[in-house]
Amino acid sequence: MNLTFKPYTLGLKHQFTLAGSSRGTTPVMLTKIEHKGFTGYGEASMPPYLGESHDSVSKFLKMLDLRKFNDPFNLTEILNYINNIVPGNTAAKASVDIAMHDLLGKMIKQPWYKIWGFDKTKTPLTTYTIGIDTDEIIRQKVKEAEPYKILKVKLGRDNDKEIIDIVRSVTDKPIAVDINQGWKDWKMALEMVYWLKEKNTLFVEQPMPKNQIDDMARLTEKSPLPTFADEAVQGIDDVVKIKGIYSGINIKLMKCGGMRNAREMISIARALDMQIMLGCMTETSCAISAAAQLAPTVDFADLDGNLLINNDPFIGLKVTDGYTKPIDSHGIGVELLNPAFFG
Amino acid sequence: MNLTFKPYTLGLKHQFTLAGSSRGTTPVMLTKIEHKGFTGYGEASMPPYLGESHDSVSKFLKMLDLRKFNDPFNLTEILNYINNIVPGNTAAKASVDIAMHDLLGKMIKQPWYKIWGFDKTKTPLTTYTIGIDTDEIIRQKVKEAEPYKILKVKLGRDNDKEIIDIVRSVTDKPIAVDINQGWKDWKMALEMVYWLKEKNTLFVEQPMPKNQIDDMARLTEKSPLPTFADEAVQGIDDVVKIKGIYSGINIKLMKCGGMRNAREMISIARALDMQIMLGCMTETSCAISAAAQLAPTVDFADLDGNLLINNDPFIGLKVTDGYTKPIDSHGIGVELLNPAFFG
Repeated sequence: MNLTFKPYTLGLKHQFTLAGSSRGTTPVMLTKIEHKGFTGYGEASMPPYLGESHDSVSKFLKMLDLRKFNDPFNLTEILNYINNIVPGNTAAKASVDIAMHDLLGKMIKQPWYKIWGFDKTKTPLTTYTIGIDTDEIIRQKVKEAEPYKILKVKLGRDNDKEIIDIVRSVTDKPIAVDINQGWKDWKMALEMVYWLKEKNTLFVEQPMPKNQIDDMARLTEKSPLPTFADEAVQGIDDVVKIKGIYSGINIKLMKCGGMRNAREMISIARALDMQIMLGCMTETSCAISAAAQLAPTVDFADLDGNLLINNDPFIGLKVTDGYTKPIDSHGIGVELLNPAFFG
Repeated sequence: MNLTFKPYTLGLKHQFTLAGSSRGTTPVMLTKIEHKGFTGYGEASMPPYLGESHDSVSKFLKMLDLRKFNDPFNLTEILNYINNIVPGNTAAKASVDIAMHDLLGKMIKQPWYKIWGFDKTKTPLTTYTIGIDTDEIIRQKVKEAEPYKILKVKLGRDNDKEIIDIVRSVTDKPIAVDINQGWKDWKMALEMVYWLKEKNTLFVEQPMPKNQIDDMARLTEKSPLPTFADEAVQGIDDVVKIKGIYSGINIKLMKCGGMRNAREMISIARALDMQIMLGCMTETSCAISAAAQLAPTVDFADLDGNLLINNDPFIGLKVTDGYTKPIDSHGIGVELLNPAFFG
């Protein structure tokens, strides 16, 4: 098997503001694995606050020698090799995992959701993210989000209630909120959750700093809404650890290292009676279409990353009637717009 | 899809004696699912002490209407229908789950271990079971077991040390022991485990009655050998429950309802740092070949059920050099010897 990769920079339609940072682009690395006439595509997305970069992913991918593997069906062996070569680098690992799955799905001639036997009709509605912004732009974003049935509103600064009031001045559709660790006091957090519940909120994501474990467990115990871990859950090993601290987990391919690990985390979370959200970074249709293969198994899909960019090099999953159902093309189901992209 | 089934009775090469019963045959139900020119085979094995029978499985299978499903790729939907129709009946459910996997694997044109991406070379040695018997027959069985590198010796009556001494008079290969809930006192059990460890024993299976939970947890905590749950673990929901009480689980398709659930249990057990054994009943090569698809992922394989019978209607997995590696034919990898078997 032959691996090639190319750095790329996503342009964001709107400046992207979290509780702690703001930016207008996201670096990604696109990967391609070729084997006997089949081609698989993958992607690493590297929002700067997570620590990976064009340089680190490039360095990681250069360490790999996939030429020593002759059979993509030895997926476990290949992915174990990639996972064990160095720690961390989860986005870089995901870029290979996704390309391997795309390649193998094309060889099997099925989309992965079918190989996994999932029922596509069980895919939940996707949420659409409304980032922190000026009142006027929030209003505009909510209006633009008309096709989506659930909004995920970013909170966690000192104007949370104002932002919700602005959203509620435009729409009464259900919302979820993502605090990105922004609340520091669990009793205040609990009051906010009760207030948000009255505003037709479905769940609260990462309300408190990931290290405030006892506070978070108290909040979850008393919360009238499910709480989801995002920053507090990375990969497979974390699911068991946060049982009892959060009601559910937000699985992202870039955090956990790809489709294989995400698939495992779903089994584990279900066994522990935890809810599951499937999330994303700002990503191209490549990583989004890969994640969507798992969407039929989760409680909430938050797969809007490709909707937030203006230079997607792939054609893949599109939101239809508010759903990000996996598509029926083989592998992860994407086409590269410019065949000469990888040179 | 069209489901047909036929009762069959396996003849056992040796009378099969556990801590509580003895018999010379095992009733099984063989199933066949046909769809668009593809045929999948499955099997329910019903050792009488587990409560299922030709009658109960027949009654269960008659309740099912698979004609309403047109796409075997909707595996989750179909298996959920089968699992939810009535509780229990896990062998009956496994007979449909296995046939569905065989059918779908043939449509995908791959064996399941490849679809799951497992590395066949990681398959552990299989154990070969030495049942409770007279001294002379135990000696003879141990000699017959020459091709197998690990023996699993059934204990749990009042002559455990004598049986081990007989085995050790013939061979020094590593053994495992299966107590089938036969030990009632945890301190005596612990003494026995220490004694067995000196006799080159690898693990102890279901040492105490499944309801003696506190005693069992104490034994596991102090045991110098891993303890495996067998009677104490049935399906997916049980894995989390027995964490801390046993070191590992014995997964059997007939207990958990088939390949899908077994696959899930493996993910869950791994997340909980539990060891995994893959076991079986006396079964034809059909259910054994199905279970073997999962063998590359486990710590111990105990897939000798088809070696213990004298009228296997299938050609499938054969033990090679002590290993039960999955075979490369599509689906579960079996052929029916008599094409007219189902009439």
